[in-house]
Amino acid sequence: MSAKNIRIYDTTLRDGSQGEGVSFSLQDKLNIARRLAEIGIDYVEGGYPLSNEKDVAFFEQIRKDDLGDTKICAFGMTRRRSMKAADDPGMKALVAAQTPCITLVGKTWDYHATDVLNVTLDENLAMIGESAEFLAGHSEVIYDAEHFFDGFKANPDYAIETLKSAASAGATCLVMCDTNGGTLPEEVAAITATAIEKLADYNIQFGIHTHNDGELAVANSLASVDAGACQVQGTINGIGERCGNADLISVMANLALKKKDYSVLGGRPLTHLTELSRYVYETANLQWRGGQPFVGQSAFAHKGGMHVHAINKAASTYEHIDPAMVGNERRILVSELSGRSNIVAIAKQHNIEDDRGLMDKILAEVVRLENQGYQYENAGASFDLLVRRITETFMPHFNPIKYRIVAGDRESGSGNVFAEAIIKLEVGEKLWFDAAEGHGPVNALDAALRKALIDSYPCLSEMRLIDYKVRVVDSSAGTAASIRVNIESSDASETWGTIGVSENIIEASWQALVDAVEYKLHKEEMPLGG
Amino acid sequence: MSAKNIRIYDTTLRDGSQGEGVSFSLQDKLNIARRLAEIGIDYVEGGYPLSNEKDVAFFEQIRKDDLGDTKICAFGMTRRRSMKAADDPGMKALVAAQTPCITLVGKTWDYHATDVLNVTLDENLAMIGESAEFLAGHSEVIYDAEHFFDGFKANPDYAIETLKSAASAGATCLVMCDTNGGTLPEEVAAITATAIEKLADYNIQFGIHTHNDGELAVANSLASVDAGACQVQGTINGIGERCGNADLISVMANLALKKKDYSVLGGRPLTHLTELSRYVYETANLQWRGGQPFVGQSAFAHKGGMHVHAINKAASTYEHIDPAMVGNERRILVSELSGRSNIVAIAKQHNIEDDRGLMDKILAEVVRLENQGYQYENAGASFDLLVRRITETFMPHFNPIKYRIVAGDRESGSGNVFAEAIIKLEVGEKLWFDAAEGHGPVNALDAALRKALIDSYPCLSEMRLIDYKVRVVDSSAGTAASIRVNIESSDASETWGTIGVSENIIEASWQALVDAVEYKLHKEEMPLGG
Repeated sequence: MSAKNIRIYDTTLRDGSQGEGVSFSLQDKLNIARRLAEIGIDYVEGGYPLSNEKDVAFFEQIRKDDLGDTKICAFGMTRRRSMKAADDPGMKALVAAQTPCITLVGKTWDYHATDVLNVTLDENLAMIGESAEFLAGHSEVIYDAEHFFDGFKANPDYAIETLKSAASAGATCLVMCDTNGGTLPEEVAAITATAIEKLADYNIQFGIHTHNDGELAVANSLASVDAGACQVQGTINGIGERCGNADLISVMANLALKKKDYSVLGGRPLTHLTELSRYVYETANLQWRGGQPFVGQSAFAHKGGMHVHAINKAASTYEHIDPAMVGNERRILVSELSGRSNIVAIAKQHNIEDDRGLMDKILAEVVRLENQGYQYENAGASFDLLVRRITETFMPHFNPIKYRIVAGDRESGSGNVFAEAIIKLEVGEKLWFDAAEGHGPVNALDAALRKALIDSYPCLSEMRLIDYKVRVVDSSAGTAASIRVNIESSDASETWGTIGVSENIIEASWQALVDAVEYKLHKEEMPLGG
Repeated sequence: MSAKNIRIYDTTLRDGSQGEGVSFSLQDKLNIARRLAEIGIDYVEGGYPLSNEKDVAFFEQIRKDDLGDTKICAFGMTRRRSMKAADDPGMKALVAAQTPCITLVGKTWDYHATDVLNVTLDENLAMIGESAEFLAGHSEVIYDAEHFFDGFKANPDYAIETLKSAASAGATCLVMCDTNGGTLPEEVAAITATAIEKLADYNIQFGIHTHNDGELAVANSLASVDAGACQVQGTINGIGERCGNADLISVMANLALKKKDYSVLGGRPLTHLTELSRYVYETANLQWRGGQPFVGQSAFAHKGGMHVHAINKAASTYEHIDPAMVGNERRILVSELSGRSNIVAIAKQHNIEDDRGLMDKILAEVVRLENQGYQYENAGASFDLLVRRITETFMPHFNPIKYRIVAGDRESGSGNVFAEAIIKLEVGEKLWFDAAEGHGPVNALDAALRKALIDSYPCLSEMRLIDYKVRVVDSSAGTAASIRVNIESSDASETWGTIGVSENIIEASWQALVDAVEYKLHKEEMPLGG
C-alpha cells in the first residue's frame, strides 16, 4: 500500500509573524516563500492583504515567480455583516492578491458570532457561505474554521453547520483550527473523526491547524491526520503567537520518517530541514533553539560518557533517526560527565584518533583543565585550539604582552560609569600598543584587541562577539571562586565558542577573547604576521 | 469518582544536568531540591553518587533537611558483571547515599546487554534482579528500564523478562524509559498497556520517562498515563540531553488542569509553577523560553488587535486556561504589565498589600526596572530594599562617592594577574577612602567596601558572599547588551540575593554588592553611622 501524502500548509509569514519579537520585511517574506517553494511545501500563506501594504506588495511580487507546485495563499476573514461579499473591502483585497489559493477564516463558536461579531448565528453562516462562494469564483478556497474545537465542544451542531456552509459554497478543504491551543490529542482525534463523518456527503478534504499552548501542537496534528485530516497547517520552527503554532519541521519529520502510512512533499527527502530552520531563524533575527527536535544543534549531541561509548559501537541504537535524514549531524560534547570515548570522537575530526600516545596526552590535559573549571561542551573552538597545541599544529598569530582595564564611576554620581582597556602585543616583529573604551571592561578589551590586530589581520572585521556568559565554577567561596567565561563569536559562515577560567573575571574573559580571535585566524589559515 | 493522583518524579538534577550548557553547583542542587520539595514534588532525583563527589556531598547535606513527603532518590546502574551486588562500588555508593528511595537503571534491549555490556541475556537479568534485591534491603527501589520501548520493539519477550526480574526482586515501580525519545504516542499507549497486562500478577506500579526528540515527550507521558502509568518522570522546563526530557510543568498542568481523571501533587494548586520555572532557569543560568507552554512570558501574551478587543470582552474564550492557575499572567503587549502577582506576594511580607496606591507605585517601578533587565526572582533582598525605598523606610547606612577597579596581567607573563579596587564613601559625617586587592575585580571591590565599613558596622564580619552569577540580558534600549549580576550572600541565619544591572559588569556587581551590605544592615537594624 502506498503512503498517503499529507499536504503541508505553511503560515510562517502570516500566523508566525504574530509571534512576540517576530517581524518580517517584504524582502524577508519573499526570500522565505521562495525557500519554502524550493523544498516543495504545498501551500505558502503569504499574509493578509486587507489594509496591509507590505502584504499587498508581497503578492504582487511573488506572482512573477515560478514556484513549481507550491501555491501561494492570501488570508482573510469572512465578509462583514450586512454587506454583499462582492462589496466587502476584505473580499476585494483577497481577489486582488491574485493568488492560486485563498484561505478564508470564519467563526465556529456560537458565542464568538453573537458576542464578538455581534451577528445572529444564521447571519454568521451566511457570511461564511457567501464569502466562500464569492472567492471560489476566483481561485481555490481553503476554509479555516477558527476555534473549531472549542466551538464544537460548546455547540457541536452549530460548529458542523459552519463547516457545511463553507463546503456547500465550494471550499476544497475545511481546516479545523485549535486557535487557543488547549485541546488534547484524544479530543482532536475524536472531533476530527466526527467532523469527517458528519460531512461525509460533501466529498471534501480536512485539514488541521494547531497551537502549542499545551505543548501538544505536534501530537495534535498527528492525531488529526490519523483520524483522517490530509492537510497540516503550521510554521517553520513553530514560531507564532503565545506558545507558537505546530512546528512543521517536527510534523513533517514525524509523518515522513516515523509513521509508516504517510509521506509529505510528494515523497521528497527532508534533508533541507535543518538548513531551512536556521534560515528562518536568521531571517527573523531570532536565536536558534539548541534543543529543537530534529534540527536543533543539540538534537543529536551526546554528553554522558556511557552513551558516547555505546554510540561509537552502535550509533543507530542511541538515535531515533539518522540525523542526515533531516540534514542535521551528530555532535559529541566534551564534558565532566564524559569519559575517554567523547574525546576520541572529537579527535577523529583531527584524524588523530589512532595515535594512542597523543590521545592519552589530550585526555590528561582535558582532565587537568576540567579540574580547574574548564568545560569544553560549549567551547568547541577552544578545544580545537587545545588539540592543536598538543599536536603542535597551533601557530600563535600574535603574542600578548600585557593588558589592563580600568573601570569605575565618576565622583559626579553613580551610574556615570566608564571602562577603558590598554593592550600591548606583538605580531611578528611588530609591537602594538593600543587603548579603547567600551560599555564595560570586556567590551573595551575586545575593542582594544581588535584595534591592535586589525592592520595585520583585516579578516577580523567580519567577526563579531554574539554572546557572553559567566559562571562561578565553585560557588563555595563567593567572589574568590573560579569564574568561567564563555564567549560565542560568529562570522558569515560559522558560530564558535571559546572559554576562559580564572579567579579574575577579566583574565577569564581575556583568555576566551584571545581564543576566539586565534580560532578565526586558524580557520582562515591566515599566515602569521598577517 | 475521585481523581487518580499521578506521582511526579523530578530528574532535573540528574538527567536535566545532561543538557548542553547545564551545570549545577552543589548549592544550586540543594536550592532546587528544596524548592521542588516545597511545591510537593513526590520524588527528587539528586544525582549519581558513584565517583561524583558533588553528588555525594549533595546527599550528605540534603539528608539533614525536613522535606515533608518528598523523597530524595539516588540514581545508579545495575551491578557490574561477575560481581556480587554487595561488593559492587556502585551499589555501595547508592546505599551510602542513605536516601529514602533508590532508582536503579538497567538494560532492556537485548542488543545493549550483549553488545554494550558484553553480558549474556541471562546475566543481564541476574544483574537487574540481584541489584534490585540488594538495594530493596535498604530503601524503596524504583526500576528505570532503559530503552524500554526500543527494546520492546526489538524483543518484546526479553523486555518483559527484564521488568519481571526487577519486580520479583522488590522494586516498587517499573519505569518505562523512552531513552532515545523517538517513540510515537500510539506506540507508547499500546506498549504501556501490554507491559501492565504482562505484569498483572506482580501487583506493581508503572511509570513513564520520555524524551522530546520527536517533540512528543509530553504527549507520550500523557498517553502512558492514560494507559495506566501512575508515575511521570521528567525535568523542570524540560531541560536535558539532546532535545530534553518531558517538561514536568506541562505534564503537571495538562494532567491536573486539562484532563479530568487525574490530580498531581496530591491536589495542591499549581500556582507556583511559573515561579519555579524561572527559578530553575536562573539557577541553571539559562535563558527563559518566552513561548514555553503554561509558564512562558508569552504564553498568555496577546498581540493581534482583534484578539485584545475580544479578550476584554471574554478572556476565557481566548485562553485555554486561566493563567493564574499556573502562577502566570495575561500580558497585553501594548502595556507591559508583568509580575503583579509576584509583587503582591512579596509585598505581603511588608504588610502593604492592601495599600492600593503604594502597590501601584511599586508595580510601576518594577515594570520600569524590568524593562532595564532587572529580575527579582532570585533577588529578594534587592526587592526588599526597593519596597523600603518606595515606602520610605530605607535608611542608607553609607553614601558611596566613587569606586574604581584596575585589573590586568603583568608583563612578566600571562596568568600573573591582579585586581585592585579603591572606594570612597561616607558613613554619617565621616569620609572613608580605602583600597584592597582581590582575586578578581569583584572580590577586590567587596574587600574594599568591607574595609571602609567594618569600623562603623562590625556585624559585616559575619557576612560572606556565597555565589556570584552573571547574565547577558537584552536591553530594551537596543544599544549594547546589559549585564545582570546576581549575588548571593549569607550570614549564620540567612541567605539573601541581590541584583545589579548595567552595560558595565563592574557597575552591575557594585550595585549588587551595595544592596547585599545594605540588606544585612537593615535586617540587623543597625543604627545609622554604626
